[in-house]
Amino acid sequence: MTGKVTVRVNGEATDCLPTSDRGLLYGDGVFETLAVIEGNPRHWSRHMSRLQSGCERLGIEPVDISLLEDECRRLVEKTERAVLKVIITRGGGGRGYRIDSQSTPTRIVQLHDWPDFSPECAAGGVAARLCETRMGHNPALAGIKHLNRLEQVLARQEWDDPCIMEGLLLDSDDHIVEGSMSNIFMVKDAVLKTPDLQLCGVAGITRAIILELAARQSIKTRIDQIKPDELLQADELFLCNSLIGIWPITSIRNNVFRKGRITSQLQTLLESYPEDSDDWHG
Amino acid sequence: MTGKVTVRVNGEATDCLPTSDRGLLYGDGVFETLAVIEGNPRHWSRHMSRLQSGCERLGIEPVDISLLEDECRRLVEKTERAVLKVIITRGGGGRGYRIDSQSTPTRIVQLHDWPDFSPECAAGGVAARLCETRMGHNPALAGIKHLNRLEQVLARQEWDDPCIMEGLLLDSDDHIVEGSMSNIFMVKDAVLKTPDLQLCGVAGITRAIILELAARQSIKTRIDQIKPDELLQADELFLCNSLIGIWPITSIRNNVFRKGRITSQLQTLLESYPEDSDDWHG
Repeated sequence: MTGKVTVRVNGEATDCLPTSDRGLLYGDGVFETLAVIEGNPRHWSRHMSRLQSGCERLGIEPVDISLLEDECRRLVEKTERAVLKVIITRGGGGRGYRIDSQSTPTRIVQLHDWPDFSPECAAGGVAARLCETRMGHNPALAGIKHLNRLEQVLARQEWDDPCIMEGLLLDSDDHIVEGSMSNIFMVKDAVLKTPDLQLCGVAGITRAIILELAARQSIKTRIDQIKPDELLQADELFLCNSLIGIWPITSIRNNVFRKGRITSQLQTLLESYPEDSDDWHG
Repeated sequence: MTGKVTVRVNGEATDCLPTSDRGLLYGDGVFETLAVIEGNPRHWSRHMSRLQSGCERLGIEPVDISLLEDECRRLVEKTERAVLKVIITRGGGGRGYRIDSQSTPTRIVQLHDWPDFSPECAAGGVAARLCETRMGHNPALAGIKHLNRLEQVLARQEWDDPCIMEGLLLDSDDHIVEGSMSNIFMVKDAVLKTPDLQLCGVAGITRAIILELAARQSIKTRIDQIKPDELLQADELFLCNSLIGIWPITSIRNNVFRKGRITSQLQTLLESYPEDSDDWHG
């Protein structure tokens, strides 16, 4: 994680953000994390659409996507495999929560090394755990990939065992929400189920794609509340995000899971999933 | 609010924060806002104590307070009246929630112009409103003045009327928590009451001082849940924070309140409240 990081702030080749930026002061912004493969950020349009919708819900000025695309293009060209992080904050401001009508959003784009995930994680699966840290309910923020991420930070601090690849968070009503950096799916009696994210959690791009892929294969899907007991009774369990794709879960505490047929099928479909037609390279 | 801002980052006279700082990426940090009067940040020890305790709860390395004091001293000397903002973040890190054991906290100190509050706010009182934005319950974060402040940002966006000086936030169970930038007290039948902050909210320094002052005057105090109906039945209502001191509330919607005896008494006591003996100038 300490490798080359290339950064642009509002188009400038700099790593410097003024300390008056509301992204720092209040976590007042949104972000996206994209997998770059052969100079192409995967699912660019979907990520930009979520970014724009997050800004809209927070009342942040719409982002000039073509400008952002230009800046990202300069960062990722000739990159074989990397992680592109795009951050939009509300911009600078005075002290105080009130929004300065003069402030314009800050665009930050960062290129990171591809994380050294073992291929075994996707192939054989990973161990996960249930975290103590609970997610608070906040419908006004639910679904948005915003910069207020202390719940995830606290959850990720709970374990140090390098064999455990993800921690699952419950909400204050003891429902499973998601992993600290991923969404979660379970399969029971051939039904694919993922937690409802109306009250908290991040509505992942890969989660949405998986729901679409499953529907096209006539796999029954359901978005609903999931209690830990139900989760631990699953036939198959897996995590997903834009970088890891799909990782089967093989164990939680003493509960062991097998990588099942539907998980394998979705992995194959996800890998060969075409880009959206309006992506920048389309 | 657009006046002179003087800033130090880790002791350096710079306004530049690297975009890899977790304060920006995750709101992974805490802050304090202090009133500076004649070169002296009021209640320095109390603020530093809350800062340190916030860091401890988030698992951020303890702050070197004497170093921070040095940096603040250089900023505030010869300042007659200003606002000192101190931000501590967990420091730099790679991409991902996991904490890099190598990272050391970032210290940011900013000096802002004193806000131009009308003396009338404290003397005559202010209008407040009830916000739609709800605060989520999160005991792990409750009380801490951390950098995840989107709830306050959303709440502050709800109104634009310059005559309304504060918005009150309710939690997801419809209990009053606090103002967007202040704590709240009510007086009913000579009992001083303020919301319990075990589930959400910021445990204000001025709130703590007021509770102490009231106890010394043998005013009955109570920390408990407060429903809006109860609040609107109050004999006296007031807001407090380190900059405004105490502002009586004169109206919420169509409900009108008088500045009462206990509010006036606490204002007088608060103004003449001595500094803690171990403050830097002590």
